[in-house]
Amino acid sequence: MPVYRLDIAYDGGGFRGYAKQPTVPTIQADLEMVIADLVGPVETVVAGRTDAGVHARHNVVSFETEAEVDLARLRRSANTRLGPEVVVTDAGVAPDGFSARFSATGRRYQYRIFTGDHPDPFTADFTWWVEHDLDMEAMNTAAGAFVGEQDFTSLCRKAGDRSMVRHVRHASWSQDGPLCTYDVEASSFCHQMVRSMVAICVDAGRDKIDPASVPEILAALDRQAGRGVAPPHGLMLWEVSY
Amino acid sequence: MPVYRLDIAYDGGGFRGYAKQPTVPTIQADLEMVIADLVGPVETVVAGRTDAGVHARHNVVSFETEAEVDLARLRRSANTRLGPEVVVTDAGVAPDGFSARFSATGRRYQYRIFTGDHPDPFTADFTWWVEHDLDMEAMNTAAGAFVGEQDFTSLCRKAGDRSMVRHVRHASWSQDGPLCTYDVEASSFCHQMVRSMVAICVDAGRDKIDPASVPEILAALDRQAGRGVAPPHGLMLWEVSY
Repeated sequence: MPVYRLDIAYDGGGFRGYAKQPTVPTIQADLEMVIADLVGPVETVVAGRTDAGVHARHNVVSFETEAEVDLARLRRSANTRLGPEVVVTDAGVAPDGFSARFSATGRRYQYRIFTGDHPDPFTADFTWWVEHDLDMEAMNTAAGAFVGEQDFTSLCRKAGDRSMVRHVRHASWSQDGPLCTYDVEASSFCHQMVRSMVAICVDAGRDKIDPASVPEILAALDRQAGRGVAPPHGLMLWEVSY
Repeated sequence: MPVYRLDIAYDGGGFRGYAKQPTVPTIQADLEMVIADLVGPVETVVAGRTDAGVHARHNVVSFETEAEVDLARLRRSANTRLGPEVVVTDAGVAPDGFSARFSATGRRYQYRIFTGDHPDPFTADFTWWVEHDLDMEAMNTAAGAFVGEQDFTSLCRKAGDRSMVRHVRHASWSQDGPLCTYDVEASSFCHQMVRSMVAICVDAGRDKIDPASVPEILAALDRQAGRGVAPPHGLMLWEVSY
C-alpha cells in the first residue's frame, strides 16, 4: 500500500498528549479525524509520542491507504481545522515501507527555562520559570553524564520489561540572557527521560546535588534515585531525522 | 503626596484592554485590586491605554498615596497573583509630580506578522498570520509616509473634538525569515492608529494599493479613506520613554 508522510508542529498545551485516548483531546485524534474526512479511516504511526502538555516543532506521522490522497487539500484542511495549535507543515508520498516511527534514526528535543525574578508573559507557554540563578557549568557537567549508550532506568517510567538502554548522542545547555536551553539528541528516548534529565540538571544548577553524582544516579537503575520530572510545557520535540 | 511607578508587561490576549470597564477583565482592574489589598484604594495613571487583545512588553503605571508602600512586597504579590499574564518588572518611588501618562515623552510600538503557507503554533498569540508574500519595499514606502507631524484623522477612531495631530518620529518594517516586524515611535498615538497603519502597509505589501497613495489617504482627513485595522494580537507596546 502507498505510504504518506505528514510533517507536523503543535502547541501541546491544550492536549492530553499526542497519543489517542478515549474522551480527552489528543493530537492524534484530531489529525485522524481530518484524514478520515478526506480519505476514510486510517491508522497513523508517529515518530514521537509526546506527553500531555509537551510541544513539537517537528514531529512526523505516516499512514498507509489505498484511497486517493489529495495531499495539498489534506494539508489545507488540517491547517484550517486544527491551526494554529496543530499544523501540517509538509505532506508527501513516502518510500515503500516507510514508518514515521521505525524509520526514524534520531530524535532531538529542546527544553527551555526562563530564569529571572518575574515570569515572562510572552514565553510562559513554552518555558519553565525557575526563580533562581542556574550554574551553567554544573548543568553541563550533569548533562555530560547522560551522553553515551547507557541504561536509563533511573530516569524513565517503567514500561513492562522493555529495555531502558538508549544511546544519547548529544546533551548540552546554553544560555541567552534569562533563557536557558537544553539540547539533547538520541536514537530514541524512553518515557519521561528528557524531563527527568532536566530535573537533575536544574538541581545541579541550583547546587542541590553535586553534578559529579549523576553517574551514580544512573548506575542505581532505580527511579527513586532520580530527581522527579521538570514540567511538560518547557519541552519541545525539536526535530526527527531519518 | 509621594508618587510610585510600576513598570509592567502583559499578554493582553485574555483582557478587554488595559482600561477599567465594568464586568469585563482588564489589566487596570487586576492591578488596582492587588495594590488596594496592600495599600488601600488608589487611582492609577498609565502611559499606554492599550486596546482589547493588545500586549505590552513595557508599559508604565503611576499612583499617589500617603500610605506606606512596601514596593518589593507589592511587586511579589502582583507577580504571584497576576503572573505570568501580567507582571510587574520594576517598582520604585518616582520624582514629585511624575505622571506615567503626562511625563512620557515617547511611545514605541511593534507589530508582528507571520507570513508563510501555514500558521505558526508558537508565535500565534503574538503575531498576525498573513498567508501572502509581502513586498517589504512597498511596505516601507507606505510607512515612510507616516513620519513627521501630521493630522492622522484618517487612521484614528474619533474622540470628540480632540486633535489627531501627532508627531511620528520613526516608522519602518524589517523581515527575518517569515516574520515581519513594524517598528513605530511617536510622542503619542491616537486610538487605533498603529493598527490602521499596519492595515495600510499590508495592503501596499500585497499590491492592493499603491504605496505612493498613502499621503492622499492621510490628506483626506477621513476615516473611510483608510484600510481598516489589523487585528490586535499582533500589536505590542514595546517601550515608553521619559
